[in-house]
Parts: sequence; structure tokens; C-alpha cells
Amino acid sequence: MKNLFNLFLLLIFLQNTAKAQDENITLVKSIYDNAITSDRAYNQLGLLCEKAPGRLIGTPNSFVAVDLMKKYLEDLGADTVFLQPFSSPAWICHSSSATMILDGKEIPLNVVALGPSASSPESGVRAEIIEVMSLDEVRKLGQENINGKIVFFNRPADPTLYNTFRAYGGAVDQRGSGPALALEMGAVASITRSVTNHLTDFPHTGTTHFKGKKLPAIAISTNDAEKLSKALKSNPHLKVNIKVDAEDIITNTYNLIADLKGSEKPDEYIVVGGHLDAWHNTPGAHDDGVGCLQSTEVLRLFKELGLKNKRSIRVILFMDEELYQAGGRAYADFTRENKIKNYFALESDAGGFTPRFFTIGASKEILAKIQKYQYLLQPYGIEKIVAGGSGVDIGPLKAFGVPLSGYRSDWQRYFDMHHCANDTFEHVNQREMQLGSAAMTSLIYLIDQFDLAD
Amino acid sequence: MKNLFNLFLLLIFLQNTAKAQDENITLVKSIYDNAITSDRAYNQLGLLCEKAPGRLIGTPNSFVAVDLMKKYLEDLGADTVFLQPFSSPAWICHSSSATMILDGKEIPLNVVALGPSASSPESGVRAEIIEVMSLDEVRKLGQENINGKIVFFNRPADPTLYNTFRAYGGAVDQRGSGPALALEMGAVASITRSVTNHLTDFPHTGTTHFKGKKLPAIAISTNDAEKLSKALKSNPHLKVNIKVDAEDIITNTYNLIADLKGSEKPDEYIVVGGHLDAWHNTPGAHDDGVGCLQSTEVLRLFKELGLKNKRSIRVILFMDEELYQAGGRAYADFTRENKIKNYFALESDAGGFTPRFFTIGASKEILAKIQKYQYLLQPYGIEKIVAGGSGVDIGPLKAFGVPLSGYRSDWQRYFDMHHCANDTFEHVNQREMQLGSAAMTSLIYLIDQFDLAD
Repeated sequence: MKNLFNLFLLLIFLQNTAKAQDENITLVKSIYDNAITSDRAYNQLGLLCEKAPGRLIGTPNSFVAVDLMKKYLEDLGADTVFLQPFSSPAWICHSSSATMILDGKEIPLNVVALGPSASSPESGVRAEIIEVMSLDEVRKLGQENINGKIVFFNRPADPTLYNTFRAYGGAVDQRGSGPALALEMGAVASITRSVTNHLTDFPHTGTTHFKGKKLPAIAISTNDAEKLSKALKSNPHLKVNIKVDAEDIITNTYNLIADLKGSEKPDEYIVVGGHLDAWHNTPGAHDDGVGCLQSTEVLRLFKELGLKNKRSIRVILFMDEELYQAGGRAYADFTRENKIKNYFALESDAGGFTPRFFTIGASKEILAKIQKYQYLLQPYGIEKIVAGGSGVDIGPLKAFGVPLSGYRSDWQRYFDMHHCANDTFEHVNQREMQLGSAAMTSLIYLIDQFDLAD
Repeated sequence: MKNLFNLFLLLIFLQNTAKAQDENITLVKSIYDNAITSDRAYNQLGLLCEKAPGRLIGTPNSFVAVDLMKKYLEDLGADTVFLQPFSSPAWICHSSSATMILDGKEIPLNVVALGPSASSPESGVRAEIIEVMSLDEVRKLGQENINGKIVFFNRPADPTLYNTFRAYGGAVDQRGSGPALALEMGAVASITRSVTNHLTDFPHTGTTHFKGKKLPAIAISTNDAEKLSKALKSNPHLKVNIKVDAEDIITNTYNLIADLKGSEKPDEYIVVGGHLDAWHNTPGAHDDGVGCLQSTEVLRLFKELGLKNKRSIRVILFMDEELYQAGGRAYADFTRENKIKNYFALESDAGGFTPRFFTIGASKEILAKIQKYQYLLQPYGIEKIVAGGSGVDIGPLKAFGVPLSGYRSDWQRYFDMHHCANDTFEHVNQREMQLGSAAMTSLIYLIDQFDLAD
């Protein structure tokens, strides 16, 4: 009799589990159905790219972007929309250009200033070029060979790597640390081959780290890097003239935050965000307009579908992921000062292509728990949920023990657009972007509903 | 002692297995390295799209395409390149257009003839429209309601389905069988909403099946389908005028075949192919120029990397997948007549986007064997190898018991381009296409090397 009763309980349990699973399947489908058929976020992305390209921290367009998105979040019906102010150094680039002087002719090169490059004199910095393939080579060449010259870092990102982020990671030291090292060795300026696996005419910018003193530092398109390298072979003494007009400022700016109040634990926040800033040379569609709009979609979908979040959903559009990564630190400070409990944080800052996976930065137990939801997202192309880094903006929350996650779309085309003028709205596919919005919303729904700890 | 000896044997075995695995990893990487950094196939695809758009069976451009690709395969150094001749009905479309007559004005609609639509009289077929959502609705309406009218099939492909091929499959009966049914019920022409999950101005054509008698049958862009439907609501008696100028012919044409002779079993063929024909309204880049060039890449990579195929590699560029599927049947006949042993056949005819998976049509044992190679392709984005249909051209080989496979790239954007003028070379990403070439080459290498049966 007791065995029969146990069997009965087991059947009830299994039935309930199956029912809960069915309900989750239906609910996730309702999220996808709405996301795929809504063009609201996509249209807003178009507006953001059109009205506020080059919205780097401190620029007029960064404030246009904040206004535009604040209004949008209010229209979506967030419970609270507010600006979280902070003060930060910033860098405004007015112009940058370079020419290669060959047979007395000045041949223009496709270049763009790295942030925060020093300005050149108005007539430019003109000097001979020394081409190197690594930072080590610069160290070996030493001051005696570098002094007074322009260092040209020309090691390509390895195109044969399937993971284009790894290819990027394998070459980006030439941009991040190369210019400061060149300066240390007496160089008068630096040129870095654009960090992309792709051969193209677009120069790709990005951040570089100086320790106090700076020099004019530019990136050159990969095609022109090849051209310059070739020209150097036959004209070892050829000179390049580099012009940069930029200024360092201090700006008072904001992270833009919108909350959808939780019904049971309103003081616990599930953070979802992207960064609102974009480099001076790009509309910033994939990087990271898409991430911003996918994050606002989480709020829209919860609200429109009446998903009843237990915890508060907090959308954060971070200012300054690109230049000094100030926005993420500012929110971490805000968290510390106000003793905010961030329950979970998800960032989308890796492009809005077709969905592939989520990364999780958390304990093994939490990773395992989240991985259990993968079966619900697998039918929509989320092939795995794996341990991995999340995003620059939410990274500082790690110190508070917050479980972090990154949304990852297919990365094959990402560095065709990253940090360059080619990162346009036209290269975003509405459907692919919205599959990401739905995946992010579904993951957050499941985490909020079923909790991370048992 | 014996136990020790067994342990010793086991260690040797494990070491050899590990070594073989390492060698396979290295070899697969060498295939990818070459494919990703070669632009030969991509450039040839550009040429094919430029020189031979609309290369439907029997058209002048279909012969241009054969010549162009024959020369290319000879240049690649195939051991044998030959044309496998066959005779087939074909259909040449000279022009198609339609206007909606509203308030006495003729408003042009974005349309294209389905293959093999009947011609209209020179002045067109002008009649009232009856909008339906299904074939069943046509049957229910019957002759009394349909006679003398133009049937307008307007059920959308479901955009909420992640699998866009399923969305396509759920609507394509309106194109494949709708026109013949309309004719049976006395209709004078038919209009089918383009079978795509996407709202666009491009009309998408495709094949329709008549049983003897034909009528003028066109597809309308999804945007204009919406427009026409809306106009009908307020003007139920509005007329549409449809013009089609096309002719039925018999053509002598060819499958293009190139072999790379096997070193051990030259009489066994591993077939890899795509179809060379493309609809009259499109350059046919993704459908299926990409599949053709990915197939020729298998041959190029085997040859250039000296991969030493045991069996003969046979590249087949099939003529006529689109209209009557004659090329696949012709090769099956050729196989029967010449007692050819096709060991395995792989087709690429589902777009050249970022790689996702392979389908296998074979016994469970063979599927399981092939699935064992997935770990080698997983690092390059092949997330699974699953049971499933392969391709229309190699389909007839199933009757011979040939294990079949289909290469599948990401399908989110596929029906933005399928069978319409938007299927241009510019929409093919070289890197994504070449990842597919490498995946296909790797799979064929592994199957040839390690056999399908133990």
C-alpha cells in the first residue's frame, strides 16, 4: 500500500514536472513569437544609428543618444527611468588623417585615430616608418632604432581561427599597448594595423592605454597596411605624415537605467544591458546599438506579455565601454554606495547576428543550474551554455559575487564591422537581432522564475 | 604477465587512437586554413553570378554557366571533366508583369512568373480576384465561385518559426499545387504570395506542378500581397491584369562532372554537388552558386593539399534542380546504365551562411559512425550531425542505397534571398562560404579515410 502510494506521488511529481516543462516551452515560444514579429526595437536601432553616430562618452551625440533612449524607455512603460550620473575623463576626436610620401607625392591612407590619441601639430607629425610584428620586436629594437620614428605595428589577426574573437585577442596588444611602448622607445607617433581578420579599406579604431604621456596613435585599414608594408620594402626611408586633432576633457555623463519593478523581491535586481557609447568613426549598430535594444526588449517583452517578474528587471545602457570603461565601474560604485543587490547580470556586446550561445561567469553549481534551461532555447539556435567571460560593463559586478552572463551571436562577420564605419544599421538583420532579444528574455525569465539557488 | 601484456596492448591501442585523433585534428585544420585564406572559389562565384544570372535549364545562360564552370574545373586540375548529356523539357520565360486596376488606374505589382507558367494573351489576362488562404478553401469554394477568376493564394509563411525551412514548407503548397487546383476549378490565372517569412518588395518564384493543361501563374512580393489584399477589402471587384510571355521547349543539356581519381578504389565514387541552374529572376548566388563552388572546393582542397583520396571524388554540378528536377534523375539513370558505385553523396543546396550542421540519410549504423566525426568539426561551428533529408539532386541515389548527406548553413536569412533578385553575390560572405567548403571537404576526407562500414 505504501509502495503504491509512493508510486502515486512519483506519478504526480512526474506529471507536474512534465506540465511545468510544457508550460515553459509555451511561454518561451510566446516570447519568441512576439520578439520576431515586433519591429519596434529594430526601428529604434535605426533611429539611434541615424541620430547619434559616433556617440563616444562626452560627445554631443552621446547626450543625444541618452535623450533618445530615455524617451524610448519611458514610452515602453518602465516603472522608473533615471540617469545615474558620474564624472569621467573623455576624449573628443575632431579629425585624423595620414599620407604616405612616395616619389614626392602625398598618398592618402585610410586611417583613424585610436582613443585617446594625442593631437599632432597642425601640419602633422612627419617621420620615417619602422615596421614591426610584435611588441617584443619593439623592445629588442630599442631606443637606438626607434627614436624619432613612427612605429608601424603590422601583425595580422589570424584569419584561420574559427573564433574571430580569439584572432582579435591575438593581435590587439599592438593597439592596446603598442603606442605607449613605442612612445617609451622614443617614437613620435604610431600606426597600428586594424585589428580585424578581414582585408578591407575601413580603418578600425579602438582603445589604447597610455601611462601619462601620449603620442599621436592611429589605426590603418588592413588593405592600406599591406600597401604601406609593400611600399616600405622598396622605399625603406619613406615617410608618413600623421595628423590628429583631438582633445582631452572631463565630462559629466550618465548610465541610463530603467526598472520594471518585481512583484515578490523588488529589491533584488536582474541587470541586463549593453553600452550606449560608440566610437567616433561609426554608427555603432552591432557595437553596441544592438545590445542596447536587445536589453530594452527584455523590458518590453516582460511588460507586454505580462510575465510577472518576481525580481526587478533593470535595464542599464552603460556610457563608456569603449574609451575608459567608466560606465561599468560607475554602476559598481553606485551598487556599493546604495547596497544594491544585483541578483544576476547579463550583457549583450558581441554583435546581433544569428544566435549561438550564452556564457556564464558563476559557480559550477549555478552554471549547471542555468545549463538545465538550454533545452528550452536549443530549438531557437542556442546550441550551448558554457563557462566564460560576460561583458566589460557588468564585469565589475563580479567583485560582488554576482553571477554574470554574456549573450553570444555568430561571430564570423563581427570583425568586418567592429569599430569601423562599416558597422551600419543596414548590416543588422531584424530577425537575427530579435532572436537574440528573445533568447535573453527567456533566460532571464527562467532565472527569475526558478531562482539560481535551490 | 599476461595481464601486463594486455595492459601494454591497451596502452599501444590508446596511444595510436590518440595519435590518429591528433592527426585528424591537424589535417582538418589544414583544410580549414587553406579554405579560409583562398579567394579562388569566391571570385569564381562572383563571375558565375555576373556572367550567367537566370541560368535556368535550356536558357542561353545555362550553357554559359556550364562552359564557365567546365573551364574552371579543368583549371583546378581535375583528372577528368566531362558533360553528362540528357534531354529534358524546359521552359523559357521572356517576361512577366501584372497591374492592379484601381479607380481606372493601372498600378504595377511586383510579380514574377512561376515555372512553368502558361503564357497569357499579349494584352494579358484580366479578371476579378478571389483571395484564399489555402487549397482547401479553393476546393470548398468550388467552380461556381472560382470560374473565370484569378485565384490569389495569400497565406503567409509563418515568421515565428525558428526553422525558416519549416515556415517555407508550411506555405509552399500554394505555389506548388495551387495553380493547378485553381485551373481545375475554372480559374483563368493564379497569383501566389511569395513563399518567404520576410516582408519585402522582391517577388520570389519557384516551381509549380501542372497536370497537362496550364494557366498563367505568378508570384507576388509579400509587400504587394498585403497591398492587394487590402485593396480587395474595399474593392471586392477589383481586377488584376497578368501578362506572361514564356515558352515550353525540349533542350539537350548536361550535368557537369569532374573526377579526382582514387588511389585504392577508383571505381567507387564519393559524390559532392550542388545545382548549376538558377531561376530566371536571380543571379542565384546562395541558390545554388555557393553549393556549386563549395563542391568544386572539395576537389581543389584534396588536390592542393595532396589528401590522397582512396576513392574517386566526383563533383557534380547538376542542371535543373529548380524546374523539373531533371539533372538528379539523369545522373541516377547514368548510374544505373553504367553500374556506377556511388559510395556516398553530399549536397550543398541550403545557402552559404555560417555553418551549422550536416544531415544524414542512411542507416542508423552509418549515421552513428559519421556522428563520431562531429568532434572534429565542432570547433568550426558544426554543432551536430543528425538524421535528415539531403538534397533534391542526390535524392534519386537513395534508390541505390547510397548514404546521403546535406550541408546546412544558418537559415535565418535564407528566404530573404531564395528564388528572387535579391540572391546576389554581395550577400555571400566569403568566410562563411569557405567554412562550409572546409566542413564538406573534412567530412568527405574522414568518410573516405575511415570508411562507412567496419
